[in-house]
Amino acid sequence: MPKISLGSAPYIYPIPIILAGANVNSKPNFATIGDCGLMGIRPPLVYISSGKDHYTNQGILENETFSINFPTTEMLPVVDYCGTVSGRVVDKSSLFEVFYGNLKTAPMILKCPVNLECKVVKEFSIQHRQIFVAEVAQTFVDDTLVIEQDGRKSIVELARLDPILYALDNRYYSVGSAIGTGYQEHKEFHPPSNG
Amino acid sequence: MPKISLGSAPYIYPIPIILAGANVNSKPNFATIGDCGLMGIRPPLVYISSGKDHYTNQGILENETFSINFPTTEMLPVVDYCGTVSGRVVDKSSLFEVFYGNLKTAPMILKCPVNLECKVVKEFSIQHRQIFVAEVAQTFVDDTLVIEQDGRKSIVELARLDPILYALDNRYYSVGSAIGTGYQEHKEFHPPSNG
Repeated sequence: MPKISLGSAPYIYPIPIILAGANVNSKPNFATIGDCGLMGIRPPLVYISSGKDHYTNQGILENETFSINFPTTEMLPVVDYCGTVSGRVVDKSSLFEVFYGNLKTAPMILKCPVNLECKVVKEFSIQHRQIFVAEVAQTFVDDTLVIEQDGRKSIVELARLDPILYALDNRYYSVGSAIGTGYQEHKEFHPPSNG
Repeated sequence: MPKISLGSAPYIYPIPIILAGANVNSKPNFATIGDCGLMGIRPPLVYISSGKDHYTNQGILENETFSINFPTTEMLPVVDYCGTVSGRVVDKSSLFEVFYGNLKTAPMILKCPVNLECKVVKEFSIQHRQIFVAEVAQTFVDDTLVIEQDGRKSIVELARLDPILYALDNRYYSVGSAIGTGYQEHKEFHPPSNG
């Protein structure tokens, strides 16, 4: 397949859309972020990246905590809204009913089915970005989305979590169908013999 | 909605599944990675996180380059395979037809519709993870997936890129439908009056 170079384009896809929560000047504030992801599983390590001048950053730096909240597609209008206005200009504290975990300073959104309460373990800047790497202190899930298998609690399938995806075509997407199981699909693959 | 705490669980979702490429001992090697994401857009800043003992890391450290290749759902068996075997044990250099960009040392997979050629700008370790933050030197896209609008080339919609998603229910997923446009959907949201 012939390739075209598009210069230096940030085509990472899909991007999970989350609401990052922090207490800024003692009030909950929420920023819509797509620069968010996983860095480790055991123990859980995550990050968010945010423009240096973003209001949310002040609160994260002050408390060394933040939250990652996963909205559902139904919440798209308010999610998009939180990405278009700054907490400096608009008080976003009344947009959501919030709760707190053991860290006390990371506001979490009750309406989001999954919430990660995060403790910053590393912070660094590159260009005009500030990156916060954090351990997950506690994970909260709506009780209707928790399943118990072999005595162990875990989370239902992705489709029921109904997350918002984003891509750099500037569109939001829903998640599609399950297409396979991790560490099983390789059984359908027959590597070429090197001999 | 009552919440259940699941302890400290890394429920970031969905996760984009990519093949990270590096030349290790002068041969292309590819690792399936879900710990990958965006850290900045202008200029494009990305990262991958990989267990410290992973074979791929050797090549990234040596050359300070790597590639991010986005497979399609059709490639799932070989993608899953690359996540189950180490390059120490299996020579993965013959699995894909590769090409190189200006950096010369970041092998890219021709069959993947989008390839990012990456130059490491920061490396750090937390726990047993090694995290490589990189600038995108060049982005390659299959010519059939490039569109031109107002004289500017960009990429087609996400559905046509047909990426593989992963979630921590250990399932792979396809992407769903477009559900909205960035920075537009907030027009459907009417913030509560604070007065």
